[in-house]
Amino acid sequence: MARPDDRLADQLRPVTIRRGWLTHAEGSVLVEFGGTRVLCAATVQSSVPRWRRDSGLGWVTAEYAMLPRATTTRNDRESVRGKIGGRTHEISRLVGRSLRACVDYKALGENTILLDCDVLEADGGTRTAAITGAYVALADAISWMRDRKMIKTSPLVGSVAAVSVGIVDGEPRLDLCYEEDVAAETDMNVVCTGDGRFVEVQGTAEGQPFDRAELDALLDLAAGGCADLTRIQQEALGS
Amino acid sequence: MARPDDRLADQLRPVTIRRGWLTHAEGSVLVEFGGTRVLCAATVQSSVPRWRRDSGLGWVTAEYAMLPRATTTRNDRESVRGKIGGRTHEISRLVGRSLRACVDYKALGENTILLDCDVLEADGGTRTAAITGAYVALADAISWMRDRKMIKTSPLVGSVAAVSVGIVDGEPRLDLCYEEDVAAETDMNVVCTGDGRFVEVQGTAEGQPFDRAELDALLDLAAGGCADLTRIQQEALGS
Amino acid sequence: MARPDDRLADQLRPVTIRRGWLTHAEGSVLVEFGGTRVLCAATVQSSVPRWRRDSGLGWVTAEYAMLPRATTTRNDRESVRGKIGGRTHEISRLVGRSLRACVDYKALGENTILLDCDVLEADGGTRTAAITGAYVALADAISWMRDRKMIKTSPLVGSVAAVSVGIVDGEPRLDLCYEEDVAAETDMNVVCTGDGRFVEVQGTAEGQPFDRAELDALLDLAAGGCADLTRIQQEALGS
Amino acid sequence: MARPDDRLADQLRPVTIRRGWLTHAEGSVLVEFGGTRVLCAATVQSSVPRWRRDSGLGWVTAEYAMLPRATTTRNDRESVRGKIGGRTHEISRLVGRSLRACVDYKALGENTILLDCDVLEADGGTRTAAITGAYVALADAISWMRDRKMIKTSPLVGSVAAVSVGIVDGEPRLDLCYEEDVAAETDMNVVCTGDGRFVEVQGTAEGQPFDRAELDALLDLAAGGCADLTRIQQEALGS
Amino acid sequence: MARPDDRLADQLRPVTIRRGWLTHAEGSVLVEFGGTRVLCAATVQSSVPRWRRDSGLGWVTAEYAMLPRATTTRNDRESVRGKIGGRTHEISRLVGRSLRACVDYKALGENTILLDCDVLEADGGTRTAAITGAYVALADAISWMRDRKMIKTSPLVGSVAAVSVGIVDGEPRLDLCYEEDVAAETDMNVVCTGDGRFVEVQGTAEGQPFDRAELDALLDLAAGGCADLTRIQQEALGS
Amino acid sequence: MARPDDRLADQLRPVTIRRGWLTHAEGSVLVEFGGTRVLCAATVQSSVPRWRRDSGLGWVTAEYAMLPRATTTRNDRESVRGKIGGRTHEISRLVGRSLRACVDYKALGENTILLDCDVLEADGGTRTAAITGAYVALADAISWMRDRKMIKTSPLVGSVAAVSVGIVDGEPRLDLCYEEDVAAETDMNVVCTGDGRFVEVQGTAEGQPFDRAELDALLDLAAGGCADLTRIQQEALGS
Repeated sequence: MARPDDRLADQLRPVTIRRGWLTHAEGSVLVEFGGTRVLCAATVQSSVPRWRRDSGLGWVTAEYAMLPRATTTRNDRESVRGKIGGRTHEISRLVGRSLRACVDYKALGENTILLDCDVLEADGGTRTAAITGAYVALADAISWMRDRKMIKTSPLVGSVAAVSVGIVDGEPRLDLCYEEDVAAETDMNVVCTGDGRFVEVQGTAEGQPFDRAELDALLDLAAGGCADLTRIQQEALGS
Repeated sequence: MARPDDRLADQLRPVTIRRGWLTHAEGSVLVEFGGTRVLCAATVQSSVPRWRRDSGLGWVTAEYAMLPRATTTRNDRESVRGKIGGRTHEISRLVGRSLRACVDYKALGENTILLDCDVLEADGGTRTAAITGAYVALADAISWMRDRKMIKTSPLVGSVAAVSVGIVDGEPRLDLCYEEDVAAETDMNVVCTGDGRFVEVQGTAEGQPFDRAELDALLDLAAGGCADLTRIQQEALGS
Repeated sequence: MARPDDRLADQLRPVTIRRGWLTHAEGSVLVEFGGTRVLCAATVQSSVPRWRRDSGLGWVTAEYAMLPRATTTRNDRESVRGKIGGRTHEISRLVGRSLRACVDYKALGENTILLDCDVLEADGGTRTAAITGAYVALADAISWMRDRKMIKTSPLVGSVAAVSVGIVDGEPRLDLCYEEDVAAETDMNVVCTGDGRFVEVQGTAEGQPFDRAELDALLDLAAGGCADLTRIQQEALGS
Repeated sequence: MARPDDRLADQLRPVTIRRGWLTHAEGSVLVEFGGTRVLCAATVQSSVPRWRRDSGLGWVTAEYAMLPRATTTRNDRESVRGKIGGRTHEISRLVGRSLRACVDYKALGENTILLDCDVLEADGGTRTAAITGAYVALADAISWMRDRKMIKTSPLVGSVAAVSVGIVDGEPRLDLCYEEDVAAETDMNVVCTGDGRFVEVQGTAEGQPFDRAELDALLDLAAGGCADLTRIQQEALGS
Repeated sequence: MARPDDRLADQLRPVTIRRGWLTHAEGSVLVEFGGTRVLCAATVQSSVPRWRRDSGLGWVTAEYAMLPRATTTRNDRESVRGKIGGRTHEISRLVGRSLRACVDYKALGENTILLDCDVLEADGGTRTAAITGAYVALADAISWMRDRKMIKTSPLVGSVAAVSVGIVDGEPRLDLCYEEDVAAETDMNVVCTGDGRFVEVQGTAEGQPFDRAELDALLDLAAGGCADLTRIQQEALGS
Repeated sequence: MARPDDRLADQLRPVTIRRGWLTHAEGSVLVEFGGTRVLCAATVQSSVPRWRRDSGLGWVTAEYAMLPRATTTRNDRESVRGKIGGRTHEISRLVGRSLRACVDYKALGENTILLDCDVLEADGGTRTAAITGAYVALADAISWMRDRKMIKTSPLVGSVAAVSVGIVDGEPRLDLCYEEDVAAETDMNVVCTGDGRFVEVQGTAEGQPFDRAELDALLDLAAGGCADLTRIQQEALGS
């Protein structure tokens, strides 16, 4: 059965990364994976959380959120409900952890970089788009710090990119859109470094449990997708 | 003393209204007043709040919010702090009240239109940009309802637009940017209907109290600015 | 059509200001505008908010609230609901901003005066009664500080009073009671200094938008009402 | 050692009960025990909590709170802090339980009477003043219901009054003011019915534990004090 | 009418106290009163609350909570509801106050001991079991401090134990199980010191008010029960 | 380098599953993985969440929490902080999702089974112990339903068990204790069905990213561990 947009099983949606979308943020990116649009803003703070003070080490963290009408039907605002939902918490933690995998805390010094990832429109894969875009915003914030002599050497020890994969109609597919995501038996989010190693592997059987062969096929697809995204990130940063 | 962008005292910043910015919302607009960018999304709900049930009347309401890095320095998320601040509450109420001034509840039937106004970037006048853009998103949502035969006649009984005015360096000025807003002795937000009457007048002496002559000068400026914005709204809707 | 209590259109309700209603507060007033009763208590704190420390400047702020049975039907407590509503936030901010218009922060030194305005019974115009009464409590708190040599010169650079006006049955009226407030097409709250200048003008079209002539008539009425209230405040402070 | 106001050990402070202090409430009382002033408002609701529906039985409940400047130093508002403190919860529950002791739920029908007890000024014994005053407001609300034929027979099966007792300087004393309350080794709140039986006995050793003889002396004092208060309540209701 | 488990009116349920139930806590006890099981954990903190700093004095406090399925039907978690209920607040305060009655703050130095009392299973008398068990955990935590030379002399100036009593079917009974608790006309919780004095007496008429003779009978029963519990505590600590 | 308890790299800690630990719950288990102890309680509700009503389908969900002193140093209660942390949310969702993998919603009918997993003591692997224990409590609750004829056939379509694996000192190890968990470069939680397929795979590089060979080794270890746990579950249920 064909994909909704006729892509090949191992093909990404059109991905664009627009740097400098915001005027004030130290780094900012509007990233699009097909119909999914996420605004990633990096803020540099010359301090660290309380538990890290006087360690000489920096910190990187993230907050993920979705505008109420990013989706087909409207979701109530978490600010109005007075609390953050489990899904938001979970993804914020994932984004922060993923970005920390490519940062040398010592080179960062006692500074914090906070990545705000706000989903303006959602069509599947918002968390992986957020990670992929936030890496570029992070890189720009680090350049901003170097320009201002806040740091001497770059704390970036590599890059990270992320993609979703899943089994739909029995077929392993790369970068699911919302329609496929809902129909998937198994859904996996994978974060890789630019040199092809794994930072996060989160696979969930939504319907039938999956066997080792299926898992292997998904990991292969994801590794390929992340390699493509790494190239797109580098092109964006090179321009 | 000249304005930061060399505008005349009675001149608006460049204003753009892009309709259909979101795929799913029943109406959506990205509105820009110079460096201020607000995403306005209209959601149609075929129900009304509990206190209005079985009245045969509809409802229009709004929620305003700001992304954390819309501003020069980052603001904490209200969802993370677990409560909505007074300023957010106040502006949400103002936007809803302003839009209700151009709606016939009976013609709307027992439906609600909710306007989400999210500030992506802030450079002064975010509440007035939100009202001006939300009117266009509201008009689009009403067209959407008519196309689906949810309503027979248009519940729009006019249009609304809003602008800020203030006294800076002793001079009454139209459509203050952030730099002017901070420096203003008096700051006023005015909402007008398309036929030039007033819906809201909110003037505040930030520094020196203002006399009647100054108040009159500000009202004149605002009425002119709203007339310009009404024309821009009509052009956007005509296209 | 006559007013519910047969007043003239430009006549205030009976206004009483009882000073020293509480034993412990540095200043306290029970203010009545007809059936509206507000208890205003001033608390002197020898510190300022964090963002103002080491500036040499003081601060004045306010909190407004309503007892649950101040109104015809009972309102749930905001403490029980776990959050403050938009209306409460909005009025608290208005009261604080209004009082700050008559204070010289430098003469106040690094001290804060906090005005608690609790509505014991509501019959329209609670926010304007709160401002009018809170000014007197503020003046008493400042005398208390001078008696204790906390400050050398008075930080009061004038006085403020507030009143509501509105258009009811097509007629502009001063100081609306609840019954008139509900029926008003346009409702405006105006805060003036003792010398007749404006601090806040907040007009809202509840029903029909209003034109410039109506706005002018309302401003005239309000200026007259505030002048009367200023005299009543001075008599209360003189006794 | 003499009491601060030279009272005898078994003497109440001056107690006044002013009925009808509020215009709208179905029953309302301003009760004073010396410098302690509590506003008690009864609200009649023609419904019962969900867990009691279709039982044919009524309900009586209470909410206790303190204005921020009721005390020598200001307390933050619980609405601002976003949650109700343990002390407030505890006293609200005590007041409701005490009043329920004199009510026949069947005669009340499926109606709720809610007693709001707001402390305007505190000088010790606020919870016992609240109970004593709320009983009178409750009785007035019941008369109001009978006048409107909401109930046929009175659901009041007696009366309740409450007083604090304590051991200060080794001496058992009745109706402690704040200064004595702070100095008390043992502090006890006692709620009695009009016919002299106990509804609540809550004794706490603040300093030294107390022996049975001391407990007996305190109970004797409290029973006497409640008998006096019962007479004052009846006089108030008779007028 | 016989008791559900055929006990005598003045007989405790089987009581067991298992020390050292947790590996990490400075003191820990699993206490059982029949079917009621409470896990009490003592945590030593080398600091005191802000309001007590630089006083040279220590502090003891407690938090009580119930697992959701400790009871016949499940209760929602207070963490999920986002706030602590009145009953939980009230009991936490009672447990803390009771334990403080046997502690010399000066000998404790500027340290805090926090007692967590979590009800794993509830069959009546959870608060009194919590106090009785928490005393033993407290004693163990104090031994732990002495072993580490954090304190020189023991801050324990006695012991505390607690029990519930009530009037069921007209008969005063000791240590009510849940079935009796629900049926009781009067319910009383009593906390005594090891030498037989009272720390807390909290009696409530659930149904009929009680007279002085009934109150005396309940106090006698409670004093006897606490003496038994004191012996069981000492045996547990002696082993 | 040897493991802290001298286990082999592919060896589980001693695992015990005690059924029926609570009297009231429809299923309950105290599960121990070495020093980790989790109390799992199953509650049967004859209703489903609102969004699932009239579907004929049941639901299974879970709530995970930790007692404050389950850990070496005390954690504040989430009920006291007024909100649930991201980690708690994330694990609750994982436990529910894992259990749903072995349930046929149709056979369950419109009933909900809620699993409460409360960590009494934590020494690594609390979420995997929770899943493993909760499965047994779930099976007992289903037997309870069958005994009461609430369901005709068993909705259990298999079993689930979970274990943690990680790379410590460069060596892949099964079932990490806390000391190893803290030291792990990579940490993975794996949930398998009784027939050896995967339900969840959640791998995280805490330090160095991991390559495909390391990932494969961890998956092999986890599959073996889950097979062992499945056997232990079956023995527990067979007894």
